[in-house]
Amino acid sequence: MTLANRNLVTIDDLSNSEIEAVFSLADSMAESIDKQFGVCKGKIMASLFFEPSTRTRLSFESAMHRLGGSVITASDVGATSLSKGESIADMARVIGSYADIIVIRHPWEGAAKVVADYAGVPVINAGDGGHEHPTQTLCDLYTIKKERQTIKGLRIALWGDLKYGRTVPSLVYALARFGATILFRPGPGLELPEHVMNKLGSEYTGRLERYASLNDKVKQRLFPLDAIYITPSKPHQLANIPSVSAQVELEEGVDALYVTRLQLERLAAADEGEELKKEYPVVDKKLLKEREFKKTMVLHPLPRVNELAREIDADPRSTYFKQAGFGVPIRMALLALLLGSKQAAVAKEKESFIRAREYPPYRRGYGVKCANPRCVSVQKTEAKYIRPEFKIINRRPLVLRCLYCEHEVYPQYVASSDWHEGRLASKKYHSADSHWSTKIKTENLIIFDSASEARAQGFRPGHYAKAVPEK
Amino acid sequence: MTLANRNLVTIDDLSNSEIEAVFSLADSMAESIDKQFGVCKGKIMASLFFEPSTRTRLSFESAMHRLGGSVITASDVGATSLSKGESIADMARVIGSYADIIVIRHPWEGAAKVVADYAGVPVINAGDGGHEHPTQTLCDLYTIKKERQTIKGLRIALWGDLKYGRTVPSLVYALARFGATILFRPGPGLELPEHVMNKLGSEYTGRLERYASLNDKVKQRLFPLDAIYITPSKPHQLANIPSVSAQVELEEGVDALYVTRLQLERLAAADEGEELKKEYPVVDKKLLKEREFKKTMVLHPLPRVNELAREIDADPRSTYFKQAGFGVPIRMALLALLLGSKQAAVAKEKESFIRAREYPPYRRGYGVKCANPRCVSVQKTEAKYIRPEFKIINRRPLVLRCLYCEHEVYPQYVASSDWHEGRLASKKYHSADSHWSTKIKTENLIIFDSASEARAQGFRPGHYAKAVPEK
Amino acid sequence: MTLANRNLVTIDDLSNSEIEAVFSLADSMAESIDKQFGVCKGKIMASLFFEPSTRTRLSFESAMHRLGGSVITASDVGATSLSKGESIADMARVIGSYADIIVIRHPWEGAAKVVADYAGVPVINAGDGGHEHPTQTLCDLYTIKKERQTIKGLRIALWGDLKYGRTVPSLVYALARFGATILFRPGPGLELPEHVMNKLGSEYTGRLERYASLNDKVKQRLFPLDAIYITPSKPHQLANIPSVSAQVELEEGVDALYVTRLQLERLAAADEGEELKKEYPVVDKKLLKEREFKKTMVLHPLPRVNELAREIDADPRSTYFKQAGFGVPIRMALLALLLGSKQAAVAKEKESFIRAREYPPYRRGYGVKCANPRCVSVQKTEAKYIRPEFKIINRRPLVLRCLYCEHEVYPQYVASSDWHEGRLASKKYHSADSHWSTKIKTENLIIFDSASEARAQGFRPGHYAKAVPEK
Repeated sequence: MTLANRNLVTIDDLSNSEIEAVFSLADSMAESIDKQFGVCKGKIMASLFFEPSTRTRLSFESAMHRLGGSVITASDVGATSLSKGESIADMARVIGSYADIIVIRHPWEGAAKVVADYAGVPVINAGDGGHEHPTQTLCDLYTIKKERQTIKGLRIALWGDLKYGRTVPSLVYALARFGATILFRPGPGLELPEHVMNKLGSEYTGRLERYASLNDKVKQRLFPLDAIYITPSKPHQLANIPSVSAQVELEEGVDALYVTRLQLERLAAADEGEELKKEYPVVDKKLLKEREFKKTMVLHPLPRVNELAREIDADPRSTYFKQAGFGVPIRMALLALLLGSKQAAVAKEKESFIRAREYPPYRRGYGVKCANPRCVSVQKTEAKYIRPEFKIINRRPLVLRCLYCEHEVYPQYVASSDWHEGRLASKKYHSADSHWSTKIKTENLIIFDSASEARAQGFRPGHYAKAVPEK
Repeated sequence: MTLANRNLVTIDDLSNSEIEAVFSLADSMAESIDKQFGVCKGKIMASLFFEPSTRTRLSFESAMHRLGGSVITASDVGATSLSKGESIADMARVIGSYADIIVIRHPWEGAAKVVADYAGVPVINAGDGGHEHPTQTLCDLYTIKKERQTIKGLRIALWGDLKYGRTVPSLVYALARFGATILFRPGPGLELPEHVMNKLGSEYTGRLERYASLNDKVKQRLFPLDAIYITPSKPHQLANIPSVSAQVELEEGVDALYVTRLQLERLAAADEGEELKKEYPVVDKKLLKEREFKKTMVLHPLPRVNELAREIDADPRSTYFKQAGFGVPIRMALLALLLGSKQAAVAKEKESFIRAREYPPYRRGYGVKCANPRCVSVQKTEAKYIRPEFKIINRRPLVLRCLYCEHEVYPQYVASSDWHEGRLASKKYHSADSHWSTKIKTENLIIFDSASEARAQGFRPGHYAKAVPEK
Repeated sequence: MTLANRNLVTIDDLSNSEIEAVFSLADSMAESIDKQFGVCKGKIMASLFFEPSTRTRLSFESAMHRLGGSVITASDVGATSLSKGESIADMARVIGSYADIIVIRHPWEGAAKVVADYAGVPVINAGDGGHEHPTQTLCDLYTIKKERQTIKGLRIALWGDLKYGRTVPSLVYALARFGATILFRPGPGLELPEHVMNKLGSEYTGRLERYASLNDKVKQRLFPLDAIYITPSKPHQLANIPSVSAQVELEEGVDALYVTRLQLERLAAADEGEELKKEYPVVDKKLLKEREFKKTMVLHPLPRVNELAREIDADPRSTYFKQAGFGVPIRMALLALLLGSKQAAVAKEKESFIRAREYPPYRRGYGVKCANPRCVSVQKTEAKYIRPEFKIINRRPLVLRCLYCEHEVYPQYVASSDWHEGRLASKKYHSADSHWSTKIKTENLIIFDSASEARAQGFRPGHYAKAVPEK
């Protein structure tokens, strides 16, 4: 089976079996790195980094060179044609005619999808704002699997900045799909974003328990959980009382502790950072002496700052430098597969703890914009190329998910394209949460951010249009 | 025939037949890109970009990698040895000992010539300020030729920023040489620079008509011409009344519309840019519906900003992304030829619409400096290495053309090295426009910017030295 | 013999015979550059430049490409994971898993040693602050040897900025080891740093004479010496009266004049630079007419600014562009050797003018810090990874040499770990220069920067603790 010409924009772009195929190729490549030279001979990888990165960029470039391929690089932030006002859609089209594969890091969420839509060659997302970083997730999963042979049924604790770290969303979805239980231990104010929590709770077959439903025993532990996602992959976890399950999980011990640094560069105010630094949970010798961490492997996507004490570097449980080293064989395997230089040994999809969902699309291109200011679809240079697109993930309350950055949008008003009152002149809009609105067929829905947007499109308030203060 | 060790600093460095030879090699390379790997094995290209560029740099680097060559890159503006006060002449000598060929982009006009003078290896100009960008011109011509089989006799309209865009001068000269008619449609205040207009008018065999001589019918069209260059390559264009020819040309339709973006980064004041943006002509669906654009291919060197509406991207006349893609095979062919890795199939020069001119040089190295503040020859770090040099392109009025940036200089005073009044003590200078000055033999001319420069060299005013206010 | 997996952090990392082996391989590689392609096939060099450099970086990268190897580069100062607060120790560990060899330039003195300590692959120092630049020294020595066949017995004058130039310390030590006589001619206030002078005076077998001991004849020459290091490699230099030797040396003529530019970027205040520029000694035609420079080769590590007049470029004595060109074969040889792609033909060590010294270490990790603010060991991100380490190079007065940056430290107080007064409660500290302090065995020494540091460690002043004002 070939993965040639596929993109890796989000971790969902690969099935569980395809991920296993990447791992299996990485295994065999790692065993004979020297023999891989020439696998991608004559191929060119474009490495486009619009945000600072040494580690990710160099590991991609190292991987391509190990395969005997060539690399063209733009790593000079700000010193690019973007500063001439070009859209990334245009840039993608042009670079797509120079290279056989594109690796992109960009501060805008959803940017990698735009590049993939326009490039005409395979695109790998090397991090798009706080959205996803799927190749980091591949390294993380690969490391866990190398150490424990499986991911299914493991208890993985996520620790630190779960809000701004881009590695976290990709990892959370992947762990859920592979049947792991996930324990969330954020720093203060650094909880997993709501839209990630929602997706986790609704699209995977496990059960998500928030802090409020946990019992005091769990709450008062040294290891203060904010939430727990309990996989259905193990029998005892089917117990009905969530906090009991959580307690059982903790007592059995944590298999992996995934630590992230505080993403200072994404905080609005510097002084906010200073406060957070003080309260940020630190993994050190003392913590690792606790019973639940006895056999815990410690992971970190690096770079670290202070959240991982230097004193544990020599501890056999510290797996983070090994994890960093796996970046090269994993990326070698991925590049070789997407370039079609290697075939993938993809097994029939066995088990995947995903709840199959088909969300209807909202593609009118007007009425509603993504509310995430870092979303690629709302940037000045991009807005004229990109039509906003959403999935309608809920009708009441009305919730859309942006197709680019996956943030949720909660629009205020709706109308019907099937002009229900018969005349164009009487185009009316209604509150999205009114009983009336649910009568509009999904395919006829016209959705508005706000009353002013509705009026701008020529609609007038209907009977069921409550006034809502505009932001 | 070999082009090995030749430079490409201006488009004039290649004859028409040599350009055709580059095209013919590009054709065959494009047909079998994969088979070119190894053509430049073991060769090193230095890619030196002292101004932001993604597109041009990456297309050169992609081309070199496609040929199996290696690349060393300095793209980090400001983070270079130049910031240590080094001259580019020194830099060229050193990098010339590291690489087999140098590609240079630099903000100073004439910089590529200096690099070529000192490097000891072939040098390709990838853009020197607003001066030239000859490889872009090769791509432009190649695209036109691929679409229309010939350039001779075509009507090409240049559209937008004809003043600051560096792609324009190279292209104008090349189109004239290949026998195209050129229609100029600048944005307000963005007319082709005078020295380019003058060169076009005097050194090619066609006829240049300025706005003033065009008739009202032409002036009032949707497509407001500023000037027209009419090639002698077609019989009817020999008509004596210029505006009639222009009208005929327009009615026959435009073959190619070459659009450029506003070079905001070259404008002195930002607010000037804001004004210009409003008035800048836009190419959109509406415009392309006009009769004269019915069969027009739309070209653009990219990146674009707003001057090319997104809505025409899917129009079959839109050729700009194809044009960008041609950058790689054209640069592959050029690199392979200048490195001597391929031989050029250069036909005997057939037709070239150039007026043969031999301008006497002015090489004294004193008395007159280039008046263009962006010229490499007047930069602080360079002045001690570079001797100003000029061509004397006219005697009355006296006009020099700088050998580096090709800007024109209009000096005020002259003297004779053949001390005409017999004694050194009576060294006299005279007004350049005096009748007397024409009596000095060209080889004896000493030329002065100003009276103070003349006095600084020990000259005193002669009878024919009118006082002129100094700048 | 193999040099595989060795580091080159300081020039002392290679013996004289090993340096000769590098030269001999460089000779044979330079003769057939084209045949070296493939020597390092499949190997990856990481080129990490945390300070601006075009020349050094590109010459390393050119060398690696000439050998058929691959290169991954981080040259974008500030745009790196370091700006995320990462330590260079961590960075080294990670990049060490991506590359087969690391080339590092860094503004912190001793940074290359830290990278070598953690990377797990060979590391080459491409300049660490003002500390060392050993590959430049190899090029310098190689150039001298190519021109004069030997280094032993030559008279080499160092000229210009001997204080801030990082090329100078490496070169001084190497020249001394190879038996050259060194004449120091610094710009005003730009004398060789004291710690370099001290090392030169005490660890090599020649004799160092400072300015004060030179006679007036020497002092008043056009060529105003600040100091002279007289090698014992020639008989007459054993004369007892230093200034006579100096005079004799000067009269015999200088073999090489090594000029350096003013390192403006290392000066604290810009206006200080303006002053220095005026007084900076310039090498020009006039100077080279002096008798002692009749057969002098002029060397310069480049880039130059004004200290080397353009007018001497064509002079046969000007060797600096040749010297720059040697950068590639020297670095090719070095890379091939450290990567184990070539074996070294290392002769038995013949003559090395080194005084064998074994300094006891001070490794307690507390009590004393390096006083050099640019030392890697005192940087905020590094302090938690790096334990300060010193060599005790003198007891009275007490002088330590930092193991990272080689600066000297002069601590104020000492104590003994062999609690001399019997009880822990009476831990006492004493003045380092007291008679008493010499009674403490070196292995028992506890050393303190200051009284407050001693008190912070729980010590109280003893009888021999003079109060010294704290800085």
